[in-house]
Amino acid sequence: MPQVAVVMGSDSDLPVMKDCADILKEFGIDFEVTLVSAHRTPERMVEYAKSAKDRGIKVIIAGAGGAAHVAGVTAALTPVPVIGVPIKTSAVASLDSLLSIVQMPSGIPVATVAINAAKNAGILAAKILALSDPELTKKLEDYQAGLNTAVMHKVDKLNKLGYEEYIKQM
Amino acid sequence: MPQVAVVMGSDSDLPVMKDCADILKEFGIDFEVTLVSAHRTPERMVEYAKSAKDRGIKVIIAGAGGAAHVAGVTAALTPVPVIGVPIKTSAVASLDSLLSIVQMPSGIPVATVAINAAKNAGILAAKILALSDPELTKKLEDYQAGLNTAVMHKVDKLNKLGYEEYIKQM
Amino acid sequence: MPQVAVVMGSDSDLPVMKDCADILKEFGIDFEVTLVSAHRTPERMVEYAKSAKDRGIKVIIAGAGGAAHVAGVTAALTPVPVIGVPIKTSAVASLDSLLSIVQMPSGIPVATVAINAAKNAGILAAKILALSDPELTKKLEDYQAGLNTAVMHKVDKLNKLGYEEYIKQM
Amino acid sequence: MPQVAVVMGSDSDLPVMKDCADILKEFGIDFEVTLVSAHRTPERMVEYAKSAKDRGIKVIIAGAGGAAHVAGVTAALTPVPVIGVPIKTSAVASLDSLLSIVQMPSGIPVATVAINAAKNAGILAAKILALSDPELTKKLEDYQAGLNTAVMHKVDKLNKLGYEEYIKQM
Amino acid sequence: MPQVAVVMGSDSDLPVMKDCADILKEFGIDFEVTLVSAHRTPERMVEYAKSAKDRGIKVIIAGAGGAAHVAGVTAALTPVPVIGVPIKTSAVASLDSLLSIVQMPSGIPVATVAINAAKNAGILAAKILALSDPELTKKLEDYQAGLNTAVMHKVDKLNKLGYEEYIKQM
Amino acid sequence: MPQVAVVMGSDSDLPVMKDCADILKEFGIDFEVTLVSAHRTPERMVEYAKSAKDRGIKVIIAGAGGAAHVAGVTAALTPVPVIGVPIKTSAVASLDSLLSIVQMPSGIPVATVAINAAKNAGILAAKILALSDPELTKKLEDYQAGLNTAVMHKVDKLNKLGYEEYIKQM
Amino acid sequence: MPQVAVVMGSDSDLPVMKDCADILKEFGIDFEVTLVSAHRTPERMVEYAKSAKDRGIKVIIAGAGGAAHVAGVTAALTPVPVIGVPIKTSAVASLDSLLSIVQMPSGIPVATVAINAAKNAGILAAKILALSDPELTKKLEDYQAGLNTAVMHKVDKLNKLGYEEYIKQM
Amino acid sequence: MPQVAVVMGSDSDLPVMKDCADILKEFGIDFEVTLVSAHRTPERMVEYAKSAKDRGIKVIIAGAGGAAHVAGVTAALTPVPVIGVPIKTSAVASLDSLLSIVQMPSGIPVATVAINAAKNAGILAAKILALSDPELTKKLEDYQAGLNTAVMHKVDKLNKLGYEEYIKQM
Repeated sequence: MPQVAVVMGSDSDLPVMKDCADILKEFGIDFEVTLVSAHRTPERMVEYAKSAKDRGIKVIIAGAGGAAHVAGVTAALTPVPVIGVPIKTSAVASLDSLLSIVQMPSGIPVATVAINAAKNAGILAAKILALSDPELTKKLEDYQAGLNTAVMHKVDKLNKLGYEEYIKQM
Repeated sequence: MPQVAVVMGSDSDLPVMKDCADILKEFGIDFEVTLVSAHRTPERMVEYAKSAKDRGIKVIIAGAGGAAHVAGVTAALTPVPVIGVPIKTSAVASLDSLLSIVQMPSGIPVATVAINAAKNAGILAAKILALSDPELTKKLEDYQAGLNTAVMHKVDKLNKLGYEEYIKQM
Repeated sequence: MPQVAVVMGSDSDLPVMKDCADILKEFGIDFEVTLVSAHRTPERMVEYAKSAKDRGIKVIIAGAGGAAHVAGVTAALTPVPVIGVPIKTSAVASLDSLLSIVQMPSGIPVATVAINAAKNAGILAAKILALSDPELTKKLEDYQAGLNTAVMHKVDKLNKLGYEEYIKQM
Repeated sequence: MPQVAVVMGSDSDLPVMKDCADILKEFGIDFEVTLVSAHRTPERMVEYAKSAKDRGIKVIIAGAGGAAHVAGVTAALTPVPVIGVPIKTSAVASLDSLLSIVQMPSGIPVATVAINAAKNAGILAAKILALSDPELTKKLEDYQAGLNTAVMHKVDKLNKLGYEEYIKQM
Repeated sequence: MPQVAVVMGSDSDLPVMKDCADILKEFGIDFEVTLVSAHRTPERMVEYAKSAKDRGIKVIIAGAGGAAHVAGVTAALTPVPVIGVPIKTSAVASLDSLLSIVQMPSGIPVATVAINAAKNAGILAAKILALSDPELTKKLEDYQAGLNTAVMHKVDKLNKLGYEEYIKQM
Repeated sequence: MPQVAVVMGSDSDLPVMKDCADILKEFGIDFEVTLVSAHRTPERMVEYAKSAKDRGIKVIIAGAGGAAHVAGVTAALTPVPVIGVPIKTSAVASLDSLLSIVQMPSGIPVATVAINAAKNAGILAAKILALSDPELTKKLEDYQAGLNTAVMHKVDKLNKLGYEEYIKQM
Repeated sequence: MPQVAVVMGSDSDLPVMKDCADILKEFGIDFEVTLVSAHRTPERMVEYAKSAKDRGIKVIIAGAGGAAHVAGVTAALTPVPVIGVPIKTSAVASLDSLLSIVQMPSGIPVATVAINAAKNAGILAAKILALSDPELTKKLEDYQAGLNTAVMHKVDKLNKLGYEEYIKQM
Repeated sequence: MPQVAVVMGSDSDLPVMKDCADILKEFGIDFEVTLVSAHRTPERMVEYAKSAKDRGIKVIIAGAGGAAHVAGVTAALTPVPVIGVPIKTSAVASLDSLLSIVQMPSGIPVATVAINAAKNAGILAAKILALSDPELTKKLEDYQAGLNTAVMHKVDKLNKLGYEEYIKQM
């Protein structure tokens, strides 16, 4: 039974939101991926958000771009935490996506991550679920340690090769 | 029976949206004013938008600030034209209100006016209604002529007084 | 006889504004497409705007980029509603086009849609004309239903294929 | 034993972050409030973040303004979810606070809420803790219902008084 | 006979544009001050711009705020150089005024000065007129020398008093 | 003897500034093109600016990008009008070039044109020089008429071909 | 003999730049404070910058607002490091001051600090001078330790009083 | 023994930061290049910053993009001056990198250079080191003279070829 719902306004967001699904899979978290549009399927959005908790969903991750409303309205309809992923757009430097997700009014938070940061949305969901799952906590600690190790390997390589040779091999 | 619905996310928007109601009254257009919040009353928003046309509403004017979702989701739920009024906010130079209303995805337009331009939203509604109401068209033409006349009176006064004296009398 | 005038400042805007003409055609709305520049043909702009209503035009859609003045000045010269389409530019993140169209002074609204959203301008015009055309209302409702159906088909496909396979087929 | 840590870079942020503490208290969540500065107490920040989980902290809420680094570095040092509150600043339209909290690199998410939205940070923490606390879930549902009810009371009042009288009584 | 026309969209711009008139007066340049609104008096704008040269106007200075169109359309209607003064507005950090004046399309320049810099518009007009007026050139050189002298007096005072005492006397 | 000096901070600006030289040539105005950098040749900048008037220069056009200082400092050193061309940059949406040229302090105006609008800078110079050159005025009026005519030819073509065929031929 | 020169474009910047002088005094660093304007005293700026090193100046701190050119041109004229302080302005969210100081071209760096951060400019100068002054290094370490201690005292007070009482006593 | 540490958050920043290393090499300054991430190696960052001075490091240059925290936290942990290089990002016009580096709180300056200006960071480090190294001062003066000479050669070439031929040869 999925614990995390990964939704997005349009399938054109899927190549970005894939990073979210991939990291959830890597952490062994059960999830579902679907399309929920605030503007093309507003009533589906309401039903989806209202039923999420009873279907066992514990975190909803919503990606959208431009005037991005799905994360905010979903958050208004469920006690479940909602994570918003602002999708990069080609105008106004993506400020439309970011501000229409993060600047929520008092009472209805959306946990916003960076523009296009679908992977981070998945990791944040994992951090939330890990609060009652020590094994997942362990995986997250290993993941953070892995980030550290990967940098340290590069540090060693950089020390050995020097920066000029390192760049040539990139 | 109201032809125009003036809605807003919060009663704190009412002092701004009052300008909209006042100009509709001045044009003799029947309207209603109420609160519809995308985040505090999302289901009311859906019901309100879906039923608007059958209640005889011809134009919906929606004011909201910050992550302003009520205009966009309402527009998704009715064939009636929706006018959005971005309410001025204290952060990010009000770009949050403006962009989350105007940057709607393909298929679902919101007719956006300037930040805090509730009066202009009312005039735009009048222009729309005037398409099938010659008397209202006449009022709009008189209104525009009145704007012109007001400027011309000031021009005369400025000519007569000179700019320095004119400023003193402001 | 055209009911909608689709004007733009330059023929370089035509590939964007084409989406507007196409959707009007799809809705069976009679329209004209022409060039009206606030800066290269200012007097034509005045004549065009002043005569529009008497020629039977009910909605004017004006696209322009940069310091985009044609929508605003046109709106000052006609009781007919004017819809503005900010054309994407290569500098200042297109804020020039957006702000010079939407930030109109009190008394003279321009119904602004998203940057490059020429299609939405056409749909907004249709929504306005539909107020006195039940058949067009029906088309708009079908159009919105069609948006919904298209998403639902994708939802089914996504359920069936899974997100990884779905992306491969994009 | 506190479940939520409310930290901030400076006591000048306390009047904003108070809203966070107040709502946690209202939800009956045990919390601590303290100062942790990325720039004035960097080593304390590291110790605090590293020890948080073992001290039983389940959510860290970090408020900071300007070049706001405490949320991001804290998130790098704990598996516990970190919520960031960008504090309003007087220059660059608060974009400094917002962007330096939300635009985190891959691997290290910060759950960012709106500028100055300390109350929403508290509600988001409650939503996270409620995943393993049905009673808290009930409180959150009541809280959201309360937001709805408050709007509906205002709707009734607005219907009864009319908008002009309503504004006078504000 | 006035050589410089100082126009603005609204008399609310007059307290800012006064600085322009004052400096022109100080330089002994004959000028007129009047209201020309692109949106409230569009036809007057056209007449005014077209007739300016024949009335002996050599430079037009146009101040406007928000979606500021008067400078651009005026520039399209006269061979006379047009100077634009973006008036400070309360939203979007005055970028609306600035961008809608400066970002003119190819073929139709507006000489834009800083936000609210009406005095600089007057000085720029003087610099233009001075090209065929050696006496005015002399005044401008004296004016620039005067700016220098004023700084040097303050330098002396600062040297004598020290910065702490200097501030106390400010 | 050149009447207009076209200067720029770097030869990398030359492909943009070429448009300025070309239009000056088209108008038969004598000009010089050279490099004057506020940061690589600051003393040359001072000498160049101070000697410009005595060398017969009547207008200086200065193009620069990023922290663009050459226009402003040059304007401080000559009674001759200075036109600034903000060169498009790859970061911060070119706001660096625009704001560092246009936002000059009181006393020292720079006549700023649009980002990359070197051609408009040339036309503005021509408008300034035309004040004492009726033949040049005639050329400018012809040029503006030519812009109009070019649009009208496209209007005719668009009427004849229809928009779809017109686009195909673009 | 002064080691640090604190210069600014206008005495209106002095109340901000005072923080710089005060901290230098606190660190026992000899400094001078004077006015050097890129636009009102451009030749003085050149002389000042060129002679600074020979007068024993080791660091120049330059504060300016709007189109702020003094830091950049000064940096072009001396091998001495130049620190720029963008002064807060009332328009465009102070981006003019910040960008016109920080976005320097290749070859000519300005060490830019935060908007209005004159104190930090002084501390940065101290850090630079401390490289050859162990006593000053000690003072800087004490200063940073003092920042830490001040926070820790507030932490203790916050622990003792609780946040509500702490706020009351602010 | 290295005098300058060139650090960056990720090896993806290395192609930009290479310019910094290259110019330091050109000036004969001993340096080290390594990876220090505020988010992937936060404890390494603390150790690195704390030990830098004792290892003989005199200047730290830190490049990072997005929510860029390494420069600021490093500056909090060492008396050594820290230079920040905001790395260009693909969203929000790189304002995230710039503001999260430059907008440091009182007490902890970061000497910020332009976006991607790694070369300028190296030159700034050289200017700082030159304060106690007359030979390096000489090199810097030669370098600045070289910039001047390079422009003057281009000036000559431009004079000889004319601008049209010059562009063809670019």
